[in-house]
Amino acid sequence: MSFNSFGHLFRFTSWGESHGPALGAVVDGCPPGLELSEKDIQPFLDRRKPGSSRFTTQRREADAVKILSGVFEGRTTGTPISLMIENTDQRSRDYSNVAQQYRPAHGDFAYDAKYGLRDYRGGGRSSARETAARVAAGAVARLVISEVKIQGYLVELGGDKIDRQAFDEAEINNNPFFCPDKSAVARWEKIVDEARKDGNSVGAVVECVAFHVPAGWGAPLYAKLDSELAAACMGINAVKGVEIGDGFDAARSTGRDNADALRPADQGDGVKFLSNHAGGVTAGIATGQPVVVRCALKPTPSIVSPLPSINREGEAVEVVTKGRHDPCVGIRAVPVVEAMMALVLADQKLLHRAQTGR
Amino acid sequence: MSFNSFGHLFRFTSWGESHGPALGAVVDGCPPGLELSEKDIQPFLDRRKPGSSRFTTQRREADAVKILSGVFEGRTTGTPISLMIENTDQRSRDYSNVAQQYRPAHGDFAYDAKYGLRDYRGGGRSSARETAARVAAGAVARLVISEVKIQGYLVELGGDKIDRQAFDEAEINNNPFFCPDKSAVARWEKIVDEARKDGNSVGAVVECVAFHVPAGWGAPLYAKLDSELAAACMGINAVKGVEIGDGFDAARSTGRDNADALRPADQGDGVKFLSNHAGGVTAGIATGQPVVVRCALKPTPSIVSPLPSINREGEAVEVVTKGRHDPCVGIRAVPVVEAMMALVLADQKLLHRAQTGR
Amino acid sequence: MSFNSFGHLFRFTSWGESHGPALGAVVDGCPPGLELSEKDIQPFLDRRKPGSSRFTTQRREADAVKILSGVFEGRTTGTPISLMIENTDQRSRDYSNVAQQYRPAHGDFAYDAKYGLRDYRGGGRSSARETAARVAAGAVARLVISEVKIQGYLVELGGDKIDRQAFDEAEINNNPFFCPDKSAVARWEKIVDEARKDGNSVGAVVECVAFHVPAGWGAPLYAKLDSELAAACMGINAVKGVEIGDGFDAARSTGRDNADALRPADQGDGVKFLSNHAGGVTAGIATGQPVVVRCALKPTPSIVSPLPSINREGEAVEVVTKGRHDPCVGIRAVPVVEAMMALVLADQKLLHRAQTGR
Amino acid sequence: MSFNSFGHLFRFTSWGESHGPALGAVVDGCPPGLELSEKDIQPFLDRRKPGSSRFTTQRREADAVKILSGVFEGRTTGTPISLMIENTDQRSRDYSNVAQQYRPAHGDFAYDAKYGLRDYRGGGRSSARETAARVAAGAVARLVISEVKIQGYLVELGGDKIDRQAFDEAEINNNPFFCPDKSAVARWEKIVDEARKDGNSVGAVVECVAFHVPAGWGAPLYAKLDSELAAACMGINAVKGVEIGDGFDAARSTGRDNADALRPADQGDGVKFLSNHAGGVTAGIATGQPVVVRCALKPTPSIVSPLPSINREGEAVEVVTKGRHDPCVGIRAVPVVEAMMALVLADQKLLHRAQTGR
Repeated sequence: MSFNSFGHLFRFTSWGESHGPALGAVVDGCPPGLELSEKDIQPFLDRRKPGSSRFTTQRREADAVKILSGVFEGRTTGTPISLMIENTDQRSRDYSNVAQQYRPAHGDFAYDAKYGLRDYRGGGRSSARETAARVAAGAVARLVISEVKIQGYLVELGGDKIDRQAFDEAEINNNPFFCPDKSAVARWEKIVDEARKDGNSVGAVVECVAFHVPAGWGAPLYAKLDSELAAACMGINAVKGVEIGDGFDAARSTGRDNADALRPADQGDGVKFLSNHAGGVTAGIATGQPVVVRCALKPTPSIVSPLPSINREGEAVEVVTKGRHDPCVGIRAVPVVEAMMALVLADQKLLHRAQTGR
Repeated sequence: MSFNSFGHLFRFTSWGESHGPALGAVVDGCPPGLELSEKDIQPFLDRRKPGSSRFTTQRREADAVKILSGVFEGRTTGTPISLMIENTDQRSRDYSNVAQQYRPAHGDFAYDAKYGLRDYRGGGRSSARETAARVAAGAVARLVISEVKIQGYLVELGGDKIDRQAFDEAEINNNPFFCPDKSAVARWEKIVDEARKDGNSVGAVVECVAFHVPAGWGAPLYAKLDSELAAACMGINAVKGVEIGDGFDAARSTGRDNADALRPADQGDGVKFLSNHAGGVTAGIATGQPVVVRCALKPTPSIVSPLPSINREGEAVEVVTKGRHDPCVGIRAVPVVEAMMALVLADQKLLHRAQTGR
Repeated sequence: MSFNSFGHLFRFTSWGESHGPALGAVVDGCPPGLELSEKDIQPFLDRRKPGSSRFTTQRREADAVKILSGVFEGRTTGTPISLMIENTDQRSRDYSNVAQQYRPAHGDFAYDAKYGLRDYRGGGRSSARETAARVAAGAVARLVISEVKIQGYLVELGGDKIDRQAFDEAEINNNPFFCPDKSAVARWEKIVDEARKDGNSVGAVVECVAFHVPAGWGAPLYAKLDSELAAACMGINAVKGVEIGDGFDAARSTGRDNADALRPADQGDGVKFLSNHAGGVTAGIATGQPVVVRCALKPTPSIVSPLPSINREGEAVEVVTKGRHDPCVGIRAVPVVEAMMALVLADQKLLHRAQTGR
Repeated sequence: MSFNSFGHLFRFTSWGESHGPALGAVVDGCPPGLELSEKDIQPFLDRRKPGSSRFTTQRREADAVKILSGVFEGRTTGTPISLMIENTDQRSRDYSNVAQQYRPAHGDFAYDAKYGLRDYRGGGRSSARETAARVAAGAVARLVISEVKIQGYLVELGGDKIDRQAFDEAEINNNPFFCPDKSAVARWEKIVDEARKDGNSVGAVVECVAFHVPAGWGAPLYAKLDSELAAACMGINAVKGVEIGDGFDAARSTGRDNADALRPADQGDGVKFLSNHAGGVTAGIATGQPVVVRCALKPTPSIVSPLPSINREGEAVEVVTKGRHDPCVGIRAVPVVEAMMALVLADQKLLHRAQTGR
């Protein structure tokens, strides 16, 4: 509802800028009695941490999270959980030139148009650094939906797709790209290295799947599961497209081919689906199949190549973005998409429980 | 926040089922003093009205809207505007078989899983008929954003794309497909006719553009303009994918090619952009360029071809969906996408005004 | 959240003006599977119905409620429940003089100041007639909290208090004042008759008690049970004060006297309290004792005595309010306070269930 | 909306416990460009600071506020403002006995009933210490409503009322009671000293007035100005009653006596009121007169006298509350009521601006 909060019942409010003293999130509505300590959150922050490979920004941040409230004797109390991450490696001087110029494809121009001023250091509030707060909040959300398993990965980088036949979940964390196709890794290394050498950047497509989401989660008509996931993902920095299940391919299919046939489960009660074109959601409600989301991430707009733009006085300038940037923001977006998916599902679980008592 | 309301400040709450006595929307937060009568709403309802061509459902509904509150002596009073549309052509008998069976790719199974019961007549609450309420509310929203022009159309049907070179806005309302490419119309007629003859259905891609959206509208970080548009569009029946600007193509571009260069405006102050890959939104805030959204709509799941499914007892059945259905729901989705875009923009205008005073 | 909606999860949105074609409420978030028909709602509307005695307005309204959605085969479906009450006995001519003049202690001046225009017929949106929508919604809320019993009554009219020793719940519905003290009825009849004869009106104090509210309901810190009740009651037309438990008397007590001692329950587990100064709420959470609310209602501002005021041109005028008005609005407020209490408790039950799973 | 957030557009989320490392608030929706530094907030925190006189708790807290985000080069940026106050003088050992016992009139029993566990140190989340976060957020709100002047004070302590004839605003900050009646101060000192000597505590009544609130602020029907103020005040620790204007006295008045006559302003356009029984609010909207709120605060429940209660096992015990407590919590509530009033008015200003453009 409000500007910097997300979720209805399991709700977090994020704050902080790229180069301020700290950033954080307040997680509200968390059920009481869950075991929680920094150890449950840190690993997820480490996954998105900058500087972990030559394929990401070289900014060095410990991204160490502190729990300031809402936990007592190792368990959540049902009161707000305040999470703080201090910024330690700001280099504001890198951004001095951005103060007066608008970087194309960045939020600079729009922020000035809206607010009349902006914290230009590292993009201020519009920096992808804020996603650390989402990842921290998402780690708490995962505890609320322990029945669900969430796994994200890249399916495409710089236009190069993985081979679905070669999909191997075990590979995802064995390479710097969260790439499930071993054979694609070498190609992607080459793509990113060349882009950087060329002072350029590339885009990527993240896929994220939530397994074991109970049938029935979802809040029609205006907090539908797929609608909430779309908002959550489109709100991530650099995301320009979101698909559920077959997404745009569904528009090229037919009613007959796109139908996910239902059959009695092989044993016991229940149902099995013969396909999952729907990506686990129909009419905004989970079907019990894996929930599948895909996000298109544009190439990093921060590149060292000169780009035509204007300054705050409206004069023509050539902008060169110095500083330390990801040649492909899509890579580090993987844990962020996972976190947003966890946050949506935790919220939907509580909404479902509230209305149905289950 | 709640299940069946949409928007933060310019907010509507929708109610009603496909085969109930009526459906409607309560529009809340509308500024006072706007001239409003049924005449301002009816034309938009007529655009999505069923039975207007052989390419849509043959259900005959007048879709006549009544204003029950919030308007006095022809002007809005700032109090809730209650809009009601009576259902007149229900044929519940058509749906009797749906009561016990789950139609694949429909909400039947998920609704039962969630609520334990459902109004099965015509899909009940999950019917696309509910979008009439959105279109009515959207017509009010348009009055709030009179500076903005919104135009939707189909860019693809059954996998057949328009020729962008042949784009002619004047053609959009000259054919039953909201198709801006005259040369595509004949092909699309053939596609839809064959699909129906085959007891099948096809999908489509809707594109919708908002012109003259002032730079600065948008509410970062969790009510971003693009994030709200994604939620609004993904919440429309049958939508499985949403793109802003270049969308998934941006993921295949590079930082250099994807940057929208800024230049001083040709005359006076202000800026001009040399391209619009961003689709008018950066960092969740409008840039002043046209805001471009695309939605992928799956093929109508209601087809007369038998599909394998189960009944409420979990037994295997073959489902044949009788009744009167759109062979391509994407067609009538065009005015719905327009309406949702108007609703998001009206809300964002008020949010922007609240925070900035402009 | 929004202007004309109340509640977080069990939420209703009200619409309509005193002299429009109808008024109503959309109840959202209601659990599925509850038996509901107009018969469950009408009795509560009849309790607040005008014209039921000479001590209330002589306007004659059937206040017949229609359920337009959200109920199928006699049970709630979990989708929005649209409730409509048609206005049948408007006499707009009675109010023509109000169009140009501001009635003191009415909303006329403030509405014009806010909106620049107003529906002046019978007070338009600010008319107590809107409370019919709350009572209808409240009747649905009662089904959600069937474990709770809610009983309202007058404890004071025109400054004359009931004798607490003479309190007899059985009397409440045996007189036109919802008065639990038989001996007070004759006095109150005299007070109201004299006020009317004198072209004047009187105030009243409503007390409302919810029994069997489970310990634990309440949503600290900013949706506390008592805080929500205060908002719900202060939002009722003519209410100028709200107390929980001992209320203002608590400010005159001491820590020792105001403490509600706890003791083991006489049999089985659990607890008993030796007093209920707290009115069943501590720290915003229900203690399991009866929840006690009191509301002060000002005298009806609509009186036939001339009062000094101004017109829309700012000129001095003497206002005489014709029309048919309650000599004591506090009387008919009793079912409204009950309804708002039911709405708050239904919402709190769902909030509690969402966070705790109980 | 959510549990620990307050406000619709100008919104704050509070976090923290009495004995955690810190507490704070995130202020969201603040307009950009306002000059803000810790210096604008600290004075208000100092007013409510413990240990400032022998009439308040002897806990020593610097209550030094830090701004962690949302301010750049001395001005608000329109992004969330994170405010943090570190706890420095916790003495958890004082509270060890509270872990197993329920203090009567405290939240202990209710928190356990709700959450199954609680941070018992100093009341944890239910401690009045949390109000420091409200006061800090309120200081930011004051900048948003610079046209409004807010002044709170005590009108009653331990049942002893001020003499309205002796009201002198200049006295309010000249004594430890925020007492506007010089002659009452000595009496109140005696009352509080005796209560403490007796191991007891006393209640108080706070009155708070907002001057120059523009006519028109207020959001009918369910975010009315008076309704929001009632929620804001009833949510403050120990408050058991709230009045607007004449409050409960209005229930003892008549329509004729309670009417605030309007007259043309003495010079220029506009209006003057001949009285202010309404306390500046009619139909939920500001009239332009001073907005007057009164809150009843119960006596501090934490007293050293033994009180009968039970422990977590349900066994009868005598509870003696050690620790350092205010003998009259009403005193330090004055800046809290002021802060909540500022927060409500800032929110209402933005809501009004959003809908009306003024």
